[in-house]
Amino acid sequence: MAATALVTENFKFVSLFFKSKDVMIFNGLVALGTVAGQTAYTVFAFDCPCSPKKNYFYGLAAIGVPALVLFLVGIMLNKSTWNLVAECQLRQCRKLSTIAVFAVLANILGRAVVAPLTWAVLSLLQGQAYTCALSEFVDPSSVPGFPSGQNPEVLAQFPCEENVSTLLQPFRRDIQRHLKYQSQLIGWLLVAGMAVTVFLLQCVRRCCSPLGYQQEEYWTQYRAAEQNLFHNTAAAHAQLLAIDNVRNFFGFVSLEPEQKELLAEQQNNR
Amino acid sequence: MAATALVTENFKFVSLFFKSKDVMIFNGLVALGTVAGQTAYTVFAFDCPCSPKKNYFYGLAAIGVPALVLFLVGIMLNKSTWNLVAECQLRQCRKLSTIAVFAVLANILGRAVVAPLTWAVLSLLQGQAYTCALSEFVDPSSVPGFPSGQNPEVLAQFPCEENVSTLLQPFRRDIQRHLKYQSQLIGWLLVAGMAVTVFLLQCVRRCCSPLGYQQEEYWTQYRAAEQNLFHNTAAAHAQLLAIDNVRNFFGFVSLEPEQKELLAEQQNNR
Amino acid sequence: MAATALVTENFKFVSLFFKSKDVMIFNGLVALGTVAGQTAYTVFAFDCPCSPKKNYFYGLAAIGVPALVLFLVGIMLNKSTWNLVAECQLRQCRKLSTIAVFAVLANILGRAVVAPLTWAVLSLLQGQAYTCALSEFVDPSSVPGFPSGQNPEVLAQFPCEENVSTLLQPFRRDIQRHLKYQSQLIGWLLVAGMAVTVFLLQCVRRCCSPLGYQQEEYWTQYRAAEQNLFHNTAAAHAQLLAIDNVRNFFGFVSLEPEQKELLAEQQNNR
Repeated sequence: MAATALVTENFKFVSLFFKSKDVMIFNGLVALGTVAGQTAYTVFAFDCPCSPKKNYFYGLAAIGVPALVLFLVGIMLNKSTWNLVAECQLRQCRKLSTIAVFAVLANILGRAVVAPLTWAVLSLLQGQAYTCALSEFVDPSSVPGFPSGQNPEVLAQFPCEENVSTLLQPFRRDIQRHLKYQSQLIGWLLVAGMAVTVFLLQCVRRCCSPLGYQQEEYWTQYRAAEQNLFHNTAAAHAQLLAIDNVRNFFGFVSLEPEQKELLAEQQNNR
Repeated sequence: MAATALVTENFKFVSLFFKSKDVMIFNGLVALGTVAGQTAYTVFAFDCPCSPKKNYFYGLAAIGVPALVLFLVGIMLNKSTWNLVAECQLRQCRKLSTIAVFAVLANILGRAVVAPLTWAVLSLLQGQAYTCALSEFVDPSSVPGFPSGQNPEVLAQFPCEENVSTLLQPFRRDIQRHLKYQSQLIGWLLVAGMAVTVFLLQCVRRCCSPLGYQQEEYWTQYRAAEQNLFHNTAAAHAQLLAIDNVRNFFGFVSLEPEQKELLAEQQNNR
Repeated sequence: MAATALVTENFKFVSLFFKSKDVMIFNGLVALGTVAGQTAYTVFAFDCPCSPKKNYFYGLAAIGVPALVLFLVGIMLNKSTWNLVAECQLRQCRKLSTIAVFAVLANILGRAVVAPLTWAVLSLLQGQAYTCALSEFVDPSSVPGFPSGQNPEVLAQFPCEENVSTLLQPFRRDIQRHLKYQSQLIGWLLVAGMAVTVFLLQCVRRCCSPLGYQQEEYWTQYRAAEQNLFHNTAAAHAQLLAIDNVRNFFGFVSLEPEQKELLAEQQNNR
């Protein structure tokens, strides 16, 4: 009896749970996020090959390939890219001055470079990839007390703890710490360099602009409003043209309510 | 029976819990915050390199770079900065007296300096970075009973517990405690200095102001109201201009309800 | 059965609790507070340096600096401070009698002193800072059976348990207990002194006042009502002035509903 009641209540609960839509979307997102994160973790897990040359290529690929993908996606998702390409293709860039082309290109590259740089900084601050890639290039003579006569493969195996003999373990710890320090320092310097560059670029942009601050604000708002209205009106125009053409073919046209509304509004305006 | 009732109530409670939408947003935020915090903790973890010279640069970078970034972001996000730049660029600062420029610059710097100082104080009160950076500069002769004839690298390795021989462990503890004391004392003095500086600046500002307290209040309210109205009216103006231009291009314009309202209101006012 | 009913009621209560929105904000605040408190605990943790002279400065800084900051913030947040400063700056305090200035200053100082005193009492009742600061000043001859011929540094190391030799551990325990007793006693005496002082000041204030109890009440209510009305009317005035100025600049002004209401009411009144 108790079990039956439990199951019944359980179903009631589940049905209640699933009746409200927002909860489900949220839960779905949580589940998806968990699965995606878990998969990403096992798929992208950094696993140093610990062997000369391979280390270097592996570390380079783990930092470079995602950065390249992010860079290309950033360029592709930017509307200015395709605007520029179409402009040059249709009118041979006649309407664009060199400065304008340079400004547009700088804008596109600047936006596309943010994500890969963030990825590189995070990788460097974590230090795993750098440590793996560069451990074989450490000069053994720079480590005091390192036993001479070791072949270079030993150094390449330092990122994997279980591959190193107990005799070399203290040297391994020192070298790893040294490499992680280099990696994090480079990461921090990259962050500092990015911050200074962005600041200087903003200053230059503002100094070269012929508009004041409030005028820039107004210009931004105008462009957003124009883009929005242009998009909506172009969609309505395409809709109306399609209605006309289909009516010419069939003699009549079957419209959905919002299409009828659009047509009525259009005819009132004329 | 009791267990069944308990479970039943439990499910009712959980379903009620999930029905309200705000809870979910809250839970989502908590989950996101946890993940972000965990990631940040492993990425930005302070990891002393324990080797002469490197200690110093690493500690400096870990305190200095985030402070620099916060400072530049603070300057860039301040509207007064770009207002001042535009003013100077368009009218060669003719309309600004030296005192006004000084006041605006002091205002910008004062606001931008808050976040980096907070970061520096928190780092100093925690003491990790300071301890790492300065352990190699401790004078061994100041520690009573410290074995002489040790090379300076030993002192640089004191922040890493596992690198220090058991003979030196008691000295390590003393030196670390001494450095943490210095770090926290500097942090507290910085806090005290900041508080006194802010207090004195407020006093000077109020004493030099030609306005009484109630007048300052009124002036603040007026500026907030003007800024708000100016922003809203500029947005409406940009919207109307865009409507005009798109109508000229397509012959008609597809408007959303609030845009129609804005247009109607505008035509009534004229 | 009784237990079941209890649990059921409990869940009903909890579900009711979670249905109201404010509760969630409250929970969010509690969660945030917990995290912030935990972080603050590790950052501001009291960590006695256990070395002569440093102990004293560290304890002083840990009690004194937050008290100083709280005091200055208390003075700065008080409106009367800036009213007084503006009054003196604009009219050279001509309108204020010496008694009035004294009363206002006493009021400002009295309010500003509450938070730092609370901090000092809490620190003294906890006893950590006092124990650390004063352990080196304990006279060894006052402790019966304390081995003579110890250098004073031993006493300074008493707050750190691991630094004290097993021979001196019993004396350490006694001295620590004695210092904590002193600290808590001073804390309680401070609380008692504050309570008596506040009581006496209230008595003096009532005795010297030319107003009866009901009249004081009325006076308090009048001041609160006037302040509230003055503030609201000043805000409305600033709003109307801003509307006029923005309309002059753009030729029209985009108003929110409550601003339109304010404007209509204002025009009806004229």
